[in-house]
Amino acid sequence: MHKKHLKILKRYRITDGEKFRLKDHDPADTAGFDFSKRDAQDMLKEGVQYLSKLQDKLYAQDRWALLAVFQAMDAAGKDGTIKHVMSGVNPQGVSVAPFKGPTITELDHDYLWRINLRLPERGHIGIFNRSYYEEVLVTRVHPEILRAQHLPKELIDKDIYDDRLEDIAAYERYLSRQGIVILKFFLHVSQQEQKKRFLERVEAPDKNWKFSPSDLKERSYWKDYMEAYETTIRATASKHAPWYVVPADNKWFTRLIVVAAMVDALEKLDLHYPDVSDETRAALTEARETLAQ
Amino acid sequence: MHKKHLKILKRYRITDGEKFRLKDHDPADTAGFDFSKRDAQDMLKEGVQYLSKLQDKLYAQDRWALLAVFQAMDAAGKDGTIKHVMSGVNPQGVSVAPFKGPTITELDHDYLWRINLRLPERGHIGIFNRSYYEEVLVTRVHPEILRAQHLPKELIDKDIYDDRLEDIAAYERYLSRQGIVILKFFLHVSQQEQKKRFLERVEAPDKNWKFSPSDLKERSYWKDYMEAYETTIRATASKHAPWYVVPADNKWFTRLIVVAAMVDALEKLDLHYPDVSDETRAALTEARETLAQ
Repeated sequence: MHKKHLKILKRYRITDGEKFRLKDHDPADTAGFDFSKRDAQDMLKEGVQYLSKLQDKLYAQDRWALLAVFQAMDAAGKDGTIKHVMSGVNPQGVSVAPFKGPTITELDHDYLWRINLRLPERGHIGIFNRSYYEEVLVTRVHPEILRAQHLPKELIDKDIYDDRLEDIAAYERYLSRQGIVILKFFLHVSQQEQKKRFLERVEAPDKNWKFSPSDLKERSYWKDYMEAYETTIRATASKHAPWYVVPADNKWFTRLIVVAAMVDALEKLDLHYPDVSDETRAALTEARETLAQ
Repeated sequence: MHKKHLKILKRYRITDGEKFRLKDHDPADTAGFDFSKRDAQDMLKEGVQYLSKLQDKLYAQDRWALLAVFQAMDAAGKDGTIKHVMSGVNPQGVSVAPFKGPTITELDHDYLWRINLRLPERGHIGIFNRSYYEEVLVTRVHPEILRAQHLPKELIDKDIYDDRLEDIAAYERYLSRQGIVILKFFLHVSQQEQKKRFLERVEAPDKNWKFSPSDLKERSYWKDYMEAYETTIRATASKHAPWYVVPADNKWFTRLIVVAAMVDALEKLDLHYPDVSDETRAALTEARETLAQ
C-alpha cells in the first residue's frame, strides 16, 4: 500500500459532519484512476496481504480491536466487499456479524444489546454487515418499525431520532476510549447502477437468490434513505469514528478504498509484537540449548 | 406505602450533582423515626408486598425495566438489603447480577460488555450488586487495576476517570431512553459502624465466612473511597438515573428507603395490565360459554 494511495483516502473520509453534503460525492468517482480489471485485482491482493500482516500483529498484541461497520442500499456491494477484502485474512482474528430484523428476544432488550454481543474482542477485526445505524435509517424511513419495538409509548416522541444519533455518537466515543477503532463505510451506489445490478439478479439464474421483491419496494424510498444517510453521517462523523463515503458504482474501486482505509487505521496504531521479557528471553536461550542436544 | 413515607425519599435522592457533598449526609440518619424492630419489619413487609404487585404489572406490560445498582463499602449491607427487599418478589421477573473482578474473557472486551449481558429485559427488575461504577471507584483508588485492564497504553491518561464518568452518564441516558429506569443506591455506612460489623464477623462463627483479610486493607483507604464516591455521584446524578445516598448505620432504615425508592420509581410509570383487544375479548366470551357447558 503506497503512501500515494493512502492519500486519496482523505477525499472519502468524513471526520466532521458539519459541512457534509451527500450531493458533493459522486458514486461513479474513481479518483481519476482507470485500472484494468487485472491491475485492480493485483492491487487488491497486495492490499489484503498487507492488511493480513497488520492483523497478525493486532492479534499478537491483544490490546486494540478494529470495528468496520458497513451500511448501504441494496446491491451496493456490501457482501462482495466483505468477501473480497476479508478472505485473505486469518479468520481466527476476524468475526463478521450480519444484523437483520431483530428477534423476539432481541426486542426485549435495548437496541445495542445484540450489538454488544457481537463486538470484536481485543486483537480482533469485527465486521458489521448492517448495524445499529439501521435504528436511524430504515427505522426513520419506516416509522412503523419503531412502533413494533416494544418501547414504552411515552418514549416515542419527535426527538427520538436526534436522541438516537446522540446516543450512537456517545457509544462510539466510549468504545474508542476502550481501544476499539471504529470505521464506518457507506457504500454509495447510484440509483442507476442499482437498477443495473437488480436486472442482473433477475436475469442470471445464479444471482436470483440475491433478489427479493421487497428490494424493489425499498428502492421507491430512495430519496428518504439518502436524506437519512446524510443526517446520520452529519451527526456521527468524528475523528475517532470516521465515516467513509465510498463511491460504489465501480466494485473494484470500492474494494480498494475499503482495504486502504483499514490498512490506514491499523498503521496509525503503531502495532508491534509483544515485547519479550528477560525471563522469557532466558527461557528461549535454554530451549535453544535443550533442542540442540 | 404511604405518601408520607415516599416524601422523605427526597432527602436522599440526588438528581443534580452540582451541590452534592457527602459530608451533608449522616450515615446514622433515620429521618426522625425510631421504630421498634417489629414495626420496622411490618413496614418492610408491607412495602415488599406492594413492590411485588407493581412488579406483576411491570412484567405483564413488558415495556419498561427497572435497574437497581448497589454500591457501598464492605459491610454496609448490600447483600442483606437485596435479600430482604427482593425475597418477596416473584423471581421469574427478577435477576440479580453480582460483579466481582473481571475474568480473562471479560478483560478482552470493553468494561460495559459484561454489564450489557446482565441488563434486565423488558418487564424485569435487575439488581446489580456492585457494577460498572467500580471502574471509577476501586479503579481510581487502586490505579494498578487499571494497568491490568489490557487497554492500549496510549489510552491511559490523566483524563481517564473523567472520561469514564462522561461515558457512564451517556450510557445511562441511552438506557433510560430505551425504557430502563435506573436507580443507584449508595449505602452510606460510617467507619465506626463498619468496624462494629467487622468485629461481629470475626467473632460470630456463622459470620466468619463473610470476612476477608483484604476487607481490612480496603478500610485503610476510606478517605480515598469517600472522595471517589463524592466525585462519582456529582458527575452521574441525573433525573433519569438518580443516586440515593441511603443512611446505612441502621439496617432497618436502609431497607425501608430502598423499597420505598423502588416503589416510587415504579409508581411513576403508571403501569397497567395490557389492554385486551376486541378479538381477545370475543375469545374470552366464547371460552366462558364453552367452559360452562
